[in-house]
Amino acid sequence: MSEIFDFDFFDYEEKRDQYVEQVEELLSSKQYAKLRDMLLPLEPADIALLLEEADEEYMPLLYRLLPKELAAEVFVELESDSQEMLINGFSNAELKEVLDELYLDDAVDIIEEMPASVVIRILDRVTPEMRKSMNEILQYPEDSAGSIMNMEFLSLKKDMTVADAFKRIRRIGGDMETINMLYVTDPQRKLLGVLSVRDLLLAEEDDLIEDLMDPNLVWATTMDDKEDVAQALSKYDFLAMPIVDKENRLVGIVTVDDAMDVIEEETTEDFEKMAAMLPSDKPYLRAGVFDTWKARLPWLMILMLSATFTGLILNHYESKLAACLVLNAYIPMLSGTGGNSGTQASVAVIRALSLDEVYFSDVLKVLWKELRVSFLCGLCLACANFAKMLLIDRMLLGNDEVTTSVCLVVCLTILFVVVFAKCVGCSLPILAEKIGLDPAVMASPFITTIVDATSLLIYFNFASSLLGI
Amino acid sequence: MSEIFDFDFFDYEEKRDQYVEQVEELLSSKQYAKLRDMLLPLEPADIALLLEEADEEYMPLLYRLLPKELAAEVFVELESDSQEMLINGFSNAELKEVLDELYLDDAVDIIEEMPASVVIRILDRVTPEMRKSMNEILQYPEDSAGSIMNMEFLSLKKDMTVADAFKRIRRIGGDMETINMLYVTDPQRKLLGVLSVRDLLLAEEDDLIEDLMDPNLVWATTMDDKEDVAQALSKYDFLAMPIVDKENRLVGIVTVDDAMDVIEEETTEDFEKMAAMLPSDKPYLRAGVFDTWKARLPWLMILMLSATFTGLILNHYESKLAACLVLNAYIPMLSGTGGNSGTQASVAVIRALSLDEVYFSDVLKVLWKELRVSFLCGLCLACANFAKMLLIDRMLLGNDEVTTSVCLVVCLTILFVVVFAKCVGCSLPILAEKIGLDPAVMASPFITTIVDATSLLIYFNFASSLLGI
Repeated sequence: MSEIFDFDFFDYEEKRDQYVEQVEELLSSKQYAKLRDMLLPLEPADIALLLEEADEEYMPLLYRLLPKELAAEVFVELESDSQEMLINGFSNAELKEVLDELYLDDAVDIIEEMPASVVIRILDRVTPEMRKSMNEILQYPEDSAGSIMNMEFLSLKKDMTVADAFKRIRRIGGDMETINMLYVTDPQRKLLGVLSVRDLLLAEEDDLIEDLMDPNLVWATTMDDKEDVAQALSKYDFLAMPIVDKENRLVGIVTVDDAMDVIEEETTEDFEKMAAMLPSDKPYLRAGVFDTWKARLPWLMILMLSATFTGLILNHYESKLAACLVLNAYIPMLSGTGGNSGTQASVAVIRALSLDEVYFSDVLKVLWKELRVSFLCGLCLACANFAKMLLIDRMLLGNDEVTTSVCLVVCLTILFVVVFAKCVGCSLPILAEKIGLDPAVMASPFITTIVDATSLLIYFNFASSLLGI
Repeated sequence: MSEIFDFDFFDYEEKRDQYVEQVEELLSSKQYAKLRDMLLPLEPADIALLLEEADEEYMPLLYRLLPKELAAEVFVELESDSQEMLINGFSNAELKEVLDELYLDDAVDIIEEMPASVVIRILDRVTPEMRKSMNEILQYPEDSAGSIMNMEFLSLKKDMTVADAFKRIRRIGGDMETINMLYVTDPQRKLLGVLSVRDLLLAEEDDLIEDLMDPNLVWATTMDDKEDVAQALSKYDFLAMPIVDKENRLVGIVTVDDAMDVIEEETTEDFEKMAAMLPSDKPYLRAGVFDTWKARLPWLMILMLSATFTGLILNHYESKLAACLVLNAYIPMLSGTGGNSGTQASVAVIRALSLDEVYFSDVLKVLWKELRVSFLCGLCLACANFAKMLLIDRMLLGNDEVTTSVCLVVCLTILFVVVFAKCVGCSLPILAEKIGLDPAVMASPFITTIVDATSLLIYFNFASSLLGI
């Protein structure tokens, strides 16, 4: 049995390192048979990891140790730059061997990441039918369900018996990625129903498919957003979602493992966007320094330049500030608290939007909720700060400039800033989604910049009226 | 066929609203047969949504319209407060009916959320065997694989033939949540291998299970973290992960749909923690105002009070600031840029950690990468800002205080702050994970507070030495 069986962080890391070491040892002593025996029992995803960890020159050697079928499974799990390197080293016969073993959707995933020269070489090697299907899938927009669907699925006719269905599964089931869900179609390939392989196994030999299938089914179209399809699959606990074309004909399925990959990818993108980065499709350590730099600089630049407004406001009130310099010490706290409050609301709403817990029609409900929450939070923070300013800043540190009026200015500002930040934070993402922008971009950094400027305006207005400066 | 078939945001929202309206109409005109016909073709998850949307008084009525089996499936999908309300309205016979239809893992999920009185009522109604199994699962720690596993799985013996296996599936497969993966065990219930139902279907009647099964398998233990198990399931593209106890006996499986729920939950928690909120287990709109307030106030309070340090630094340099008040206008920009830079690095690393792309042993690799990225970013930002200060602040706005030395102070600070922020941002989450803390807590708000204080120190030190104040 495989020894990689425990997923605790330390264990897995340790075992991985042991394996890497062992691979290096066996490689340098050229014990290839032993190496092969070591790799064979592992899962394809783990073999891929070991290949990636090995020196680049050894990767083709390691890869060639694997039997044909396993090799193809490992190939799918590799990063695209490793795949490209391997393909460049392949003879035409070797390339054809790998391609013959791949499922259509995996093959498409791979060529989507390859440079044109490699794509042409691949398309030259596949069977004409596969080339046709690949071209079809490649024509769907990048984020559509069509682009990730698998065109190899098992369909049945409604007048088949269970025995007929089993015969069909035995005949063509070996080429399918999954046979757990079976789809029933009419002669025009329109979807009529769905049944699981368990339904078949529990039925009698001469039962009709029509009587076993569930005619109430959920499907998605090729042009639906792949993230929505993945979320629906998760919500309904499906193993596969049938995909129909514009004429309502069944053309493919999206399987649960692909849906999980989509959700993982999109979640990573959300994290990146919310942290003011452009999304990148490479794992953190594999992205080069320049790639990372390119993904991070744009938003940093925009946000830095938009802080000019905050600077202008400070310049404008320079004389007032000079008159009561103690006010200055509280500006970072005010903008920090405002920013954090806004971030909380925006992140909560962005996540709720992406899980379909909140829709645009809920915008007033959301605002009303945030208004009450922010008032409560603001009140607590203002009171705590009032006490802290009097007890610590004035009494303990003996700063006489911290008068009760100054405390009042600061604390009133806190209350107003928190309420303002939370209301802006919760409504901007919803509005963004409504007008077709990505709500994740409306997260913390963007909202912080708005809140920063506004909190200064609120602050100086309270200062003017209460301190008469 | 179900009409809820398209997952585009607008469509789905519209259709949901139409359904809700229709339900209300049929309810008020007491057309219960029609209502039942409308609900029956829908997916359990959608029926649950409609029940939640209806008035509370109508929920039991709607629920009782459903046939027994569907009712149980819908029950599982409801929020826990709705479940509690329904249970409180159930007769003992009704309660038993629902419980008999539930899979063990779902039943455990439900009673974990119920108050003690309801738990006792439930445990009184289930069969003695189920009570025993429930107690067993309830003893596993909350975040363990044991707590989410399903104890109803299909195991085979290695000396069975394919025909024997089919017989066994026909006999007991109906009570299993899944039969897609079949596990082969020895008489001591130790795991020997795995095969899929497809392997069975494609084999000959008299083939031995031993020859068909894959003896290289991956498993997890009951005490493994459920998130790690879910990630492993996703990485290996499994439909189920076998779970063994301390004696290496197969005791349950974790299915892919439960793994997806775990990943969704944990991702939401990460988002919440990274936005300085305490994690809550209710969907956004269902959490009450006080719950939300309680989740948000603690970190806001801590971060607000820790901004005291920033205030102290500003107080300390008050005289220098008074001597060159123009410096003040750039503080928000500096702390904003520092905060954003730190957030980028920390979020990228936190995500990489949770996807197992980065381990503690990579800490130097990560630091070296961030050092180069941050130097590049800092340099670009510093240059852009230098140009902006000279062209806009000095020439366009005619602010004579913006001298070349002031520009130099600000821009050198930017460079150092960006480098510092990114290095802190990338290393704190890794260190946190190493000492057993949640890396997500080390995200933006926490890092922003550290970076804020440090950037002021850097700023004023440059100002002192370059401007001689």
